[in-house]
Amino acid sequence: MKLAIAILVLAAGIAHAKVKSQLVEYKQGDTVLEGYLAYDDAVSGKRPGVLVVHAWMGLDDNAKKRADMLAQLGYVAFAADIYGKGNRPKDKDEAGKLAGKYKTDRALLRQRVAAGFAQLLKSPNVDAGKTAAIGYCFGGTTVLELARSGATVSGVVSFHGGLDSPAPADGKNIKSKVLVLHGAADPHEKPDDFAAFQKELADNKVDWQLVEYGGAVHCFTDATAGSDTSTGCAYDANADKRSWAAMKAFFDEMFKKS
Amino acid sequence: MKLAIAILVLAAGIAHAKVKSQLVEYKQGDTVLEGYLAYDDAVSGKRPGVLVVHAWMGLDDNAKKRADMLAQLGYVAFAADIYGKGNRPKDKDEAGKLAGKYKTDRALLRQRVAAGFAQLLKSPNVDAGKTAAIGYCFGGTTVLELARSGATVSGVVSFHGGLDSPAPADGKNIKSKVLVLHGAADPHEKPDDFAAFQKELADNKVDWQLVEYGGAVHCFTDATAGSDTSTGCAYDANADKRSWAAMKAFFDEMFKKS
Repeated sequence: MKLAIAILVLAAGIAHAKVKSQLVEYKQGDTVLEGYLAYDDAVSGKRPGVLVVHAWMGLDDNAKKRADMLAQLGYVAFAADIYGKGNRPKDKDEAGKLAGKYKTDRALLRQRVAAGFAQLLKSPNVDAGKTAAIGYCFGGTTVLELARSGATVSGVVSFHGGLDSPAPADGKNIKSKVLVLHGAADPHEKPDDFAAFQKELADNKVDWQLVEYGGAVHCFTDATAGSDTSTGCAYDANADKRSWAAMKAFFDEMFKKS
Repeated sequence: MKLAIAILVLAAGIAHAKVKSQLVEYKQGDTVLEGYLAYDDAVSGKRPGVLVVHAWMGLDDNAKKRADMLAQLGYVAFAADIYGKGNRPKDKDEAGKLAGKYKTDRALLRQRVAAGFAQLLKSPNVDAGKTAAIGYCFGGTTVLELARSGATVSGVVSFHGGLDSPAPADGKNIKSKVLVLHGAADPHEKPDDFAAFQKELADNKVDWQLVEYGGAVHCFTDATAGSDTSTGCAYDANADKRSWAAMKAFFDEMFKKS
């Protein structure tokens, strides 16, 4: 599998991988959701599947771009929709309220992300034994909730996500490997949450890794976030590139055995 | 250069790289030191050079093995000798005293590591503009001191090294990128030292990254350290493999431009 991915990467560089993408309607209970599926049409056969969970603005261009990038790497990627079809905040104030609603109601958040994960598994090209979930900011918190729910997802990756949990005992359910990619200067992460998170994982002998990028604040992967770190939310090209490489290495290690 | 290294790696896998190694005498002041040089004889031309600094037992098999592994990756590697030729502690008690001597006398420690770095640069195959230093435990502290001395070393990597500094103001001298690879359960690292280190680097806008490996304690790269984490010093195969991969990625990023 590793070789296959290596060849795909090479092909992507030389001959352009044929990434196909489409919006996909699916449901959680009675709520209609609309996600974004991306895969390389030039590849046949089953391959690892990766769920992508958006930041607080809902399923946005960054989440779609990451799904496309994962497809170019040879994965089937599905960018989930947590908020519901057409339900997109118009500004940061609305985004804060909407993200806050789900962060407060973790049971609902878990149902929404579980629906996205189930939808990923419906793709005929996904090897159900080789899956991962990645998420940005609010989406980072969300993929950690997916792991805490006991989902059989091989690994989860949080990019500048909130690490707090209202139910640390749920750490016992985690079957996934965990990779946390974090801006060392992120003002949104409280030291207590950080310590509690590490304790939750250590107590349950979870296989976890945490990377801190010096100087990086919240939003470090978001190219639209500007460069003013004093706002606490800014793009950092080095941290973006390095965190993506760390995720790739994490996936290579998990999925290399075919 | 990246392609050249990639080809070397491939060659190492298929045709076996021709790693040559030799003991090398050199001096710091009047003190005779004896290091270990390793390089791939099948490669011609200048390439990046990497200094390796041993743990508290002095220039040992692990340091030599790492130099050989770096040579297989296409680097010129020089495993320095901080303690002096023939000066090898016979047990942990002696090792603690000897390492303690240099940790207390940072000026002497800097002179010793500077001598090793100068010796690396004497290798005709080393590109002096592309250098790094890696170190284990005591050696991690030592390569950080090399950076704090203002040496023009492109990057330094500490594997389970002590991060404390008696002169945090020296952070202003650091020109190197810094990568710290750390066991999250390492009992030897005090939270205050951790925080002070991050402040030292942040205050001086150093380009730094820190990786914590869940469950790993001190000595996680040392295959002879056993598996009993309750001693605070144990081998961790995952953390060993992952930290080496993180170092390789760090080097690839620094040295990819030829």
